[in-house]
Amino acid sequence: MRELEERIVKDGKVLPGNIIKIDGFLNHRVDCALMGRMADEFAKYYDIDNVDIVLTAEASGIALAAICALKWGKQMLYAKKAKSDNIEGGLYASEIYSYTYKKKVTQIVAKDWLKSGDRVLIIDDFMANGEAARGLCDIVDQAGAELVGVGIAVEKGFQAGGQRLRDMGINYHALAIIDKADENGIVFRKQEGE
Amino acid sequence: MRELEERIVKDGKVLPGNIIKIDGFLNHRVDCALMGRMADEFAKYYDIDNVDIVLTAEASGIALAAICALKWGKQMLYAKKAKSDNIEGGLYASEIYSYTYKKKVTQIVAKDWLKSGDRVLIIDDFMANGEAARGLCDIVDQAGAELVGVGIAVEKGFQAGGQRLRDMGINYHALAIIDKADENGIVFRKQEGE
Repeated sequence: MRELEERIVKDGKVLPGNIIKIDGFLNHRVDCALMGRMADEFAKYYDIDNVDIVLTAEASGIALAAICALKWGKQMLYAKKAKSDNIEGGLYASEIYSYTYKKKVTQIVAKDWLKSGDRVLIIDDFMANGEAARGLCDIVDQAGAELVGVGIAVEKGFQAGGQRLRDMGINYHALAIIDKADENGIVFRKQEGE
Repeated sequence: MRELEERIVKDGKVLPGNIIKIDGFLNHRVDCALMGRMADEFAKYYDIDNVDIVLTAEASGIALAAICALKWGKQMLYAKKAKSDNIEGGLYASEIYSYTYKKKVTQIVAKDWLKSGDRVLIIDDFMANGEAARGLCDIVDQAGAELVGVGIAVEKGFQAGGQRLRDMGINYHALAIIDKADENGIVFRKQEGE
């Protein structure tokens, strides 16, 4: 998505350790109008009429998933981190490793809100090592729900997560794929249709 | 907001300890269409043209704040919990007590994204003891920004948070105020204009 790539170049900062900081419009301050256009772009890659639930992970995926769900007329569901006392009854749980927090995190979803047969589109802001998406796919499996696809705003193409989902035959798409980011700038992967 | 009250009665569960569980449409699975109508309702109480930023707290406020910001054409900003390694530079920080997690939590906002003079409307899903809102107001103060108001989806009127903001003269509004919730049902406060 050209607009997103241009915004990453304009506002992004490359930090040591391959960290690409775009928290001025994606996952701290959020440009919600841009996210509305990202929702329109995702709709080209998935059969939205056959999606029941947009699933994401707390916290940075929520804004994008909510705006997608609003525009598409769907329910949104987000996996929570760890256990809060206010979740009763049955839970789906999947343990992942958080590179952001450098520790294991358990993603949980209440069984009440994800059922066998639900058609699920996973939406998230970032794909790097793919731990969050792996946990979400695992939860979809546990529920006996159907995974329609995985849509990501920004993939770090030099890390393994995106390729692993492609290799699994999942309908996976990232709106921008960064193949290289260093002091010389940011290189995006050319994608089909561009 | 009549629709919200009816939805709370229909889908809410009252748990021991005055916990009102409405995670089937507000803060786990999210009814984004309803949130769109909640954004329209909030717009009756605040001068949206004079708002620059919609501010909320991670994680449960994000969906509602993002949908409000999309509908109003504003930027959204959410305070993060604790420190992740990916936030560099200056931060506003405010320590609050989380009754959900039963521990102190530090809310942080990068100084880059909130400036002196910004006109801020705080939006959140729940008001109980008011710790999250207190922390957000504190961050607005630290930035030298202007607090336009505080808008809440559901207030537990039998806890102190909402009244404290009213007593401070803040333009505070909750779309539904629960005055009592027990095995006999849920009683809402009658509000002006209803």
